[in-house]
Amino acid sequence: MKDTAKRPMVLYGTSGQALFVYDEVMRSGSGYEVVAFMDLDSEDGFEQYTQLPLISLETWKRDYADSSYMLLCPGTPSIRRKVAKEFCALGARFARHFDGDRTDAPWKAVDIGEGSYLGLNTLVGNCVKIGDHTQLMTNINVGHDVTIGDYVTIAPGAIVSGYVEIEDDVFIGAGAIISNGTPEKPIVIGQGAMLTAGTVAIRSVPPQTRIIGVPGRPL
Amino acid sequence: MKDTAKRPMVLYGTSGQALFVYDEVMRSGSGYEVVAFMDLDSEDGFEQYTQLPLISLETWKRDYADSSYMLLCPGTPSIRRKVAKEFCALGARFARHFDGDRTDAPWKAVDIGEGSYLGLNTLVGNCVKIGDHTQLMTNINVGHDVTIGDYVTIAPGAIVSGYVEIEDDVFIGAGAIISNGTPEKPIVIGQGAMLTAGTVAIRSVPPQTRIIGVPGRPL
Amino acid sequence: MKDTAKRPMVLYGTSGQALFVYDEVMRSGSGYEVVAFMDLDSEDGFEQYTQLPLISLETWKRDYADSSYMLLCPGTPSIRRKVAKEFCALGARFARHFDGDRTDAPWKAVDIGEGSYLGLNTLVGNCVKIGDHTQLMTNINVGHDVTIGDYVTIAPGAIVSGYVEIEDDVFIGAGAIISNGTPEKPIVIGQGAMLTAGTVAIRSVPPQTRIIGVPGRPL
Repeated sequence: MKDTAKRPMVLYGTSGQALFVYDEVMRSGSGYEVVAFMDLDSEDGFEQYTQLPLISLETWKRDYADSSYMLLCPGTPSIRRKVAKEFCALGARFARHFDGDRTDAPWKAVDIGEGSYLGLNTLVGNCVKIGDHTQLMTNINVGHDVTIGDYVTIAPGAIVSGYVEIEDDVFIGAGAIISNGTPEKPIVIGQGAMLTAGTVAIRSVPPQTRIIGVPGRPL
Repeated sequence: MKDTAKRPMVLYGTSGQALFVYDEVMRSGSGYEVVAFMDLDSEDGFEQYTQLPLISLETWKRDYADSSYMLLCPGTPSIRRKVAKEFCALGARFARHFDGDRTDAPWKAVDIGEGSYLGLNTLVGNCVKIGDHTQLMTNINVGHDVTIGDYVTIAPGAIVSGYVEIEDDVFIGAGAIISNGTPEKPIVIGQGAMLTAGTVAIRSVPPQTRIIGVPGRPL
Repeated sequence: MKDTAKRPMVLYGTSGQALFVYDEVMRSGSGYEVVAFMDLDSEDGFEQYTQLPLISLETWKRDYADSSYMLLCPGTPSIRRKVAKEFCALGARFARHFDGDRTDAPWKAVDIGEGSYLGLNTLVGNCVKIGDHTQLMTNINVGHDVTIGDYVTIAPGAIVSGYVEIEDDVFIGAGAIISNGTPEKPIVIGQGAMLTAGTVAIRSVPPQTRIIGVPGRPL
């Protein structure tokens, strides 16, 4: 493995989504450098586009586990939850990726959990708390006073207005919009709910419910 | 008050929206520096996140009115209209905030009125006239040959196509889309109209009318 | 014509759309410099906003054809197709415009055809192939493993998810969303189809079909 001032990152995932994340990590000044790709089935070789090492689970355990940080790329919340559980049991350490220039100021009160990722051009407002292994893709707009749980995926171009709570394992589709709540009555997207692409949620959504349309209605 | 080469700005508003504006003003090279927050009910103290002075109306009149510039942060058009009227009567001067690199070139023919604000990543095309105390939030896309009136609010992620006229006091919700008009027949959003989040306006909207859906229809 | 280290570009088109393109080309470090505007009916004079030469077809043939590169600005696919054919017959050479920092890395596998244009803040993922004389406007988000044909126009704010194929002459309206396909079954937008503003395509669209709504349905 490279000897580098940046902390080494292993990307879990071998699809286009992992390459998107690779692009962003390498482009930003985030302090990490991607050194390998893997998934649970991979065998030792080379990732076909970057020519970086593609490693097996055994190679990861032997050569990378103690000296690198992992970021989980798959878009599906339940997959990330399952993989995170397996790698936690193996003692993995997780990286986070986000634009620190936009989120780190103490007055901004932004808190981002372990293993989470905010993509290119994604903006968050003040008082935003994001859980673990949560993935916000590109061009997402998150307002102020928003709580986002663990294993949430938000697809590109989505808009989350202010005074919103998104519970664990929620999937927000591309270009979906959540209207703003109020301090007394935030809009709550319940655990495991799913907003399909382009849906507009104008009120709270019960757990495990899939909604579609403008305005969003349960399927 | 600070002695600074930048012009001092007082932000009217004490919610998350005001902190969003604070973030952008401080991050940009706009020539202003926020020195205090206030609203009509505030008492002297400190804004809780930035620790900047929170000032009362009396303190503003005595110590800030003659030497600072105000920007009104509340999102509701009628609130900004009411507050602007009161502060005009008190002799307030207003700041504007926008990315001059994107708007100032003379050939671009962009005109932005007093007290108006264009948020982060918001783009405007050529021949765009924006009135006073109008607020375009983040990630908004405004085409060419567009007129926007006074006290208009456009929420994040909205798209205004070319050959559109938006009259005073209009509220455009998050992610709403206004289709393009033509030079002979622009799309006109009438005074005080409201497009709810995610609405797509494909034709002109009468004044005071609220529309919803794709395509947008009156409620 | 200017003697310049940058390659001279002539913009075909004289409306606000052409000025949008002018703004972006001049702002970026793309290696081109706009030296004139024209359309098939223009007479020699000056473009009204930039004061750059507005040239006739005869002047183009005599003074610009051999030493400049053209970019076609009209938004309508069929107009660009017609004009490209006429100028190809006259031996024109075409420019491309896009942000090379975001697309050029070899591992990114992005291929952009002749005469095509990607606007400001438009992002593309890995394994994206774009044809000739195709126009992606501002703030567009294109995922990974996407093929876009020739003479396609994508209006601002649209979102194209991964595993999508967009055939020639398609028009994607402002803020429209195409859901993701899968490697085995990509979503295909057929030749000449049209997605109106804000439409969400959740399945393939037949050629020459216009769809509207959330989810998109044929008109």
